[in-house]
Amino acid sequence: MTSLTPSWNIIKTELSNLEIITDPLQISKLSLDYYHFSPILNNQLQDKRGDLVVRPNNEEEVIQIAQTCVKYKIPLTVRGAGTGNYGQCIPLKGGIILDTTKMNRILSLDPGTACVETGVKMAAFDKKAREIGWELRMAPSTYRTATIGGFIAGGSGGMGSITYGQLRDRGNVQSVRVVTLEDDPCVIELRGDEVQQVTHAYGTNGIITQLEIPLAPAYPWAEIIVAFDDFMTAARFGQALSDSDGIIKKLVTIQAAPICRYLTALNDYLPDGKDCALLMVSEYDLEAFHDLVYHYQGQITYLKTAQEASKGTSLLEFTWNHTTLHARNIDPELTYLQTLYFTLEKVENFYHYFGDEVMIHLEFLKVAGKAIPAGLQLVRFTTEERLNEIIDYHEEEGAAIANPHTYILEDGGRKVIEPEQLAFKKLVDPYGLMNPGKMKAWE
Amino acid sequence: MTSLTPSWNIIKTELSNLEIITDPLQISKLSLDYYHFSPILNNQLQDKRGDLVVRPNNEEEVIQIAQTCVKYKIPLTVRGAGTGNYGQCIPLKGGIILDTTKMNRILSLDPGTACVETGVKMAAFDKKAREIGWELRMAPSTYRTATIGGFIAGGSGGMGSITYGQLRDRGNVQSVRVVTLEDDPCVIELRGDEVQQVTHAYGTNGIITQLEIPLAPAYPWAEIIVAFDDFMTAARFGQALSDSDGIIKKLVTIQAAPICRYLTALNDYLPDGKDCALLMVSEYDLEAFHDLVYHYQGQITYLKTAQEASKGTSLLEFTWNHTTLHARNIDPELTYLQTLYFTLEKVENFYHYFGDEVMIHLEFLKVAGKAIPAGLQLVRFTTEERLNEIIDYHEEEGAAIANPHTYILEDGGRKVIEPEQLAFKKLVDPYGLMNPGKMKAWE
Repeated sequence: MTSLTPSWNIIKTELSNLEIITDPLQISKLSLDYYHFSPILNNQLQDKRGDLVVRPNNEEEVIQIAQTCVKYKIPLTVRGAGTGNYGQCIPLKGGIILDTTKMNRILSLDPGTACVETGVKMAAFDKKAREIGWELRMAPSTYRTATIGGFIAGGSGGMGSITYGQLRDRGNVQSVRVVTLEDDPCVIELRGDEVQQVTHAYGTNGIITQLEIPLAPAYPWAEIIVAFDDFMTAARFGQALSDSDGIIKKLVTIQAAPICRYLTALNDYLPDGKDCALLMVSEYDLEAFHDLVYHYQGQITYLKTAQEASKGTSLLEFTWNHTTLHARNIDPELTYLQTLYFTLEKVENFYHYFGDEVMIHLEFLKVAGKAIPAGLQLVRFTTEERLNEIIDYHEEEGAAIANPHTYILEDGGRKVIEPEQLAFKKLVDPYGLMNPGKMKAWE
Repeated sequence: MTSLTPSWNIIKTELSNLEIITDPLQISKLSLDYYHFSPILNNQLQDKRGDLVVRPNNEEEVIQIAQTCVKYKIPLTVRGAGTGNYGQCIPLKGGIILDTTKMNRILSLDPGTACVETGVKMAAFDKKAREIGWELRMAPSTYRTATIGGFIAGGSGGMGSITYGQLRDRGNVQSVRVVTLEDDPCVIELRGDEVQQVTHAYGTNGIITQLEIPLAPAYPWAEIIVAFDDFMTAARFGQALSDSDGIIKKLVTIQAAPICRYLTALNDYLPDGKDCALLMVSEYDLEAFHDLVYHYQGQITYLKTAQEASKGTSLLEFTWNHTTLHARNIDPELTYLQTLYFTLEKVENFYHYFGDEVMIHLEFLKVAGKAIPAGLQLVRFTTEERLNEIIDYHEEEGAAIANPHTYILEDGGRKVIEPEQLAFKKLVDPYGLMNPGKMKAWE
């Protein structure tokens, strides 16, 4: 990649018909995401800044930005709401930051499917979708602020994944439109399996402008906390609920007792020393749910109907990576890992092996049709060396770590860039301008 | 059980305010189900007849019948549409047949849940439920004629089980009301886990009069046939579709090539020598579905939208035990087995081991959260001894057979009568009048 480092005044003039942000404080703010969850990324990324932020209103404006980037060989980093955790949208080599948040039109909304611009916020979308009885299949804990395009470009799953699996699963993204950074930028529509060339690629493979997404039937989701006397009973309950095909659910989170202490806003419902499940279950199945809780000798400490839950903060915001957020607010030395444990036996091994150094936070999700325990365990960080030892032990014992302490695509969850993806990258971004430094296979 | 064999004229007089059927031909017809699928049951049951059929209109009339049965110690056998296959509703010891088909009112129908009388027909119910966007979670291939109460009393699963599991799974029946055969017959409501005392009990544990059932969101179900060059590829495709969390489906059936020959009405879509998948998939996920078919090199020979499919015969009627029906229409020597194979490895073993003697018909369904291959394989019947050898080989090799060649509850799929069920039976049927001869633990 050769940056000609043009005069930014020329660039600004070329883009003067667009919304441009030049205020250094604003640029700084729009050069960040939540990478500071990782002390390692924090060291690596804290001084990275874009040179200019552009906020296009529509696809034509995106094309104009792409033309300018190609003309001057300027790096381009696309960001949604910047709620990622791996430095996905940190401009390693400066350049233009393309902020998608004004591209927030819902282009169509029908039973089962919707077409949206990339910057549509997830919770705002759901509010509209629920009016016709549907909602997003899955969303992260940053649901209130995150954009749909950002989630698909940088995320993997979240609430809803206990039913619908992950974004990478066939059917969970129907199509994407991307603008290329060829000499003559154009729009490409990818459909079906092809979309995997741009999902979870951190915007290295084209600028996503529009998406077609499948919807889920909107249930009234009760939000529930259940307390257990010991962690493995809580974990087994989580697995049993996840495996209960007759009980519809959206969120199955298990927090080990030490983690519950950090979720202070829920203090009244997380009894001291108890291991707790934070759940979203269809109101229609609550009677069956109560039977399951009884079977596992759990104690329900919190139960809000969907109607009640809609008024306050959702339990969602104490699960997935919001757990890490709350814990780090109290103890900034904490960091986290992301793990597919696959089985409860492995969970139990790690639970005993690491004790308080690695506090287990489970999120159940579907992987290839099976509900498995995954986790975003909290780690008491000491050194990078020790963190790597912890990762190595997990992998030796058969768990799969999606390392959140790297901004390199291949070193995180995805592990391998398929040849087709690299070929697609060569096609749409021949000059390597898109989010440079993130894809090892390219560099 | 002591039958006082009272004068039937006295009984008829006592029940004269109800609809009574005394015509011997009608009584014969209403003493049958589809047990003739089994040559063994056929020998055992073909001469069994009730003495009188009564068709109550409501729960009060059911109570009146119960009072009469208790007063004269008359055996009572409850039947819905008589679409069972194991002689569930065959009156082994004569007596009164209680035909529920006039108790067919939908008492309430709301998003997610409904309350129905026991004799409501499943397809008729769904037609109403779809008006508000919902449908039954599961139904057998006899869906058009079967009653909801009959399915819950004598069935286990069907279309929809690939998503919601089986009737025995927590949440799939919310409550049942039953009339007892105590000295003073009364109504008992069972809720949640308690309902398992009367589900799949063949009406030995109380007369079901009303049920609350959970509903599923109604998708527009496309009906599809896909042809494959070899059986194991078709089976692996079935597993992959079942495991595709991002593709919503209701039916995943795989028919080995020799079985396809018997489905003559579908001749044009079942190419000679091909192994075929018969499927119901959400229209919203068809694009993802096509990608999966492509990946497995299947050939789509039939695809009807939900709208088109609603006009003709549903593919459902070529799956589950309708497969056996069609095959026996062509070759009455055929019979069948019901098997949980658990894994494709076991399927492959049996496929090669038995060859044409046992033609494999797979139905994928969820068991404890996992999609597994089950089957209603067609068997070329020779002798009972050979049939038992075939069953034994399956069980030795780790498959679980739900033997459809017995009318005894414990010898079929359920295997064990729990102590609570037996205690419940003692409570509600102290004289052992309900469907006598079916529960070994009682006899």
